Amino acid sequence: MAKRFPVEYYAERILAHDRLGLSRAITLVESTLPSDRELAHRVMDLVLPYSGNSVRIGITGVPGVGKSTFIEAFGNYVTNTLGKKLAVLAIDPTSQKTGGSILGDKTRMETLAGNKMAYIRPSPAGQSLGGVTRSTRESIMLCEAAGFEVIFVETVGVGQSETAVNEMVDFFLLLMLAGAGDELQGIKKGIMEMADAVVITKADGQNLQKARVARAEYQSALHLFPHAASGWVPKVSISSALENTGISEIWKTIGSYLELVKNGSFFEQKRQNQNLHWLHESIRQTLLDRFFAKPEVVKTLPELEQKVLKGEVSAFAAAEELLQLSHL
Amino acid sequence: MAKRFPVEYYAERILAHDRLGLSRAITLVESTLPSDRELAHRVMDLVLPYSGNSVRIGITGVPGVGKSTFIEAFGNYVTNTLGKKLAVLAIDPTSQKTGGSILGDKTRMETLAGNKMAYIRPSPAGQSLGGVTRSTRESIMLCEAAGFEVIFVETVGVGQSETAVNEMVDFFLLLMLAGAGDELQGIKKGIMEMADAVVITKADGQNLQKARVARAEYQSALHLFPHAASGWVPKVSISSALENTGISEIWKTIGSYLELVKNGSFFEQKRQNQNLHWLHESIRQTLLDRFFAKPEVVKTLPELEQKVLKGEVSAFAAAEELLQLSHL
Repeated sequence: MAKRFPVEYYAERILAHDRLGLSRAITLVESTLPSDRELAHRVMDLVLPYSGNSVRIGITGVPGVGKSTFIEAFGNYVTNTLGKKLAVLAIDPTSQKTGGSILGDKTRMETLAGNKMAYIRPSPAGQSLGGVTRSTRESIMLCEAAGFEVIFVETVGVGQSETAVNEMVDFFLLLMLAGAGDELQGIKKGIMEMADAVVITKADGQNLQKARVARAEYQSALHLFPHAASGWVPKVSISSALENTGISEIWKTIGSYLELVKNGSFFEQKRQNQNLHWLHESIRQTLLDRFFAKPEVVKTLPELEQKVLKGEVSAFAAAEELLQLSHL
Repeated sequence: MAKRFPVEYYAERILAHDRLGLSRAITLVESTLPSDRELAHRVMDLVLPYSGNSVRIGITGVPGVGKSTFIEAFGNYVTNTLGKKLAVLAIDPTSQKTGGSILGDKTRMETLAGNKMAYIRPSPAGQSLGGVTRSTRESIMLCEAAGFEVIFVETVGVGQSETAVNEMVDFFLLLMLAGAGDELQGIKKGIMEMADAVVITKADGQNLQKARVARAEYQSALHLFPHAASGWVPKVSISSALENTGISEIWKTIGSYLELVKNGSFFEQKRQNQNLHWLHESIRQTLLDRFFAKPEVVKTLPELEQKVLKGEVSAFAAAEELLQLSHL
């Protein structure tokens, strides 16, 4: 087991904007040990009043879209040009077939990793989506208490993480390649409609013209789609991380969005609803974890699943049988 | 309590394609009484081998889109022209703010209601989404065993029912009005991306030209969006229930879809995955119902929710407190 500290250590070091203390606190909230969870709750309670003061941005895109280079360019803009402290958190649950690990490429985001204004934290290996989303959500708050003003939450765009991320960020950014060809197949349905902005990446050289066409196409397509309750119409822009173009425009788009939603109660309401979402999601996840850990369920589930798949037993009868076995 | 019959009565009457027996069985599966659920499971087990032989079509659209007249025209085509037996099931949980009840208008679908080839069943009043979706799903199987070859599952398009319906049908049809104006606001985000086909309704008179333009716009927009694993690209068509145009085209579209997905394992796989989905969904729903029915939870939840909303307690700490109180 990793070394643990008294609750005051974590809180004091975080509020002193100390990176080592922050990293240790994140390691603590990533743990699922009951004793660690209890300590983590006490730490969270102490830092809670100091959290919330950041712009939380979800960034997603399938492997090949140039996500790392984009985040590096955007991150260096946020830190170097805007002078804001940036934390980058990655969600990459290993239980999912992601088709490309965020963490696989150790050399990625080299300049950002060496940037003193930036803090990069990959998600822990071997955790379920439920575990990763909880710890990411708590890590956001820890980073905010540690003085980070902009938080990127990065996902791979092919799993179910995006719905979870959408419930923890203020603004959801989708990276796409020009052309509606095969590269689209990797993106999960429904993600497009979550996007507050779409960025067509690699808009340089021979790709530039194609990217411009794609921008116009996506912009008119998104106009046809249901709008958010805030009235915000998703913006489409083009960017080249290579030539460092289109980066400041994205920040401006996020600024316009924040201006719209903060001019009224929408921003605050969204964050409050997200808090409520996580209360219920956390209960749901815990109840399911307990259920599926019951020895009787572990023993009988595969067999009943097969029967349901083959149509020999109805899904509802199988569920009832398992519920009775679980004694919950 | 409504009158109940021996399990054999329900199974025999359904397999004899008797409407009264079917209606009584649906009333049974709509009940949440433990004794009724037990009886329902036994009925479901008996009819299960005779279910599955229908085309299950989800139809959604916001109030004002002309859903009732469309379903009536499409339903009469299915029954009168194609000679197929049709069951129409409606999902309209009263716990949601639907902005317009499916059942409110008693005079709707008059010709279909009087059609001997058609069977119309609204969802029970006062039930939660979880309750309605379970009973709808079981009703689909009962209708199939009773010889219905086409099933429409109808929703209002503004709530969360559509995700549930998408998990119980083979084909998901979205009705839209021409023009991307205010009428779009009512549709929930994410529904568009579920659609296997979009029908622009009221394509007659002065609306016809606008509907044609909308068709072209939506068709190109949907091309840009992530495609289904089946490779199917959603089709957009126009229809006038008033002039009875575009109705046979929709049936042809559904035919093309079925040809594509049945030419391979996709159709069967989708249904199997849906079965598995309902096994897990049913467990989830039951565990949550039990949790939120605990007196300690009922007593403490509102207060803790307020604290979470105000940011005084973290969502995860509040969840843990409730879980401990629940003794689950």
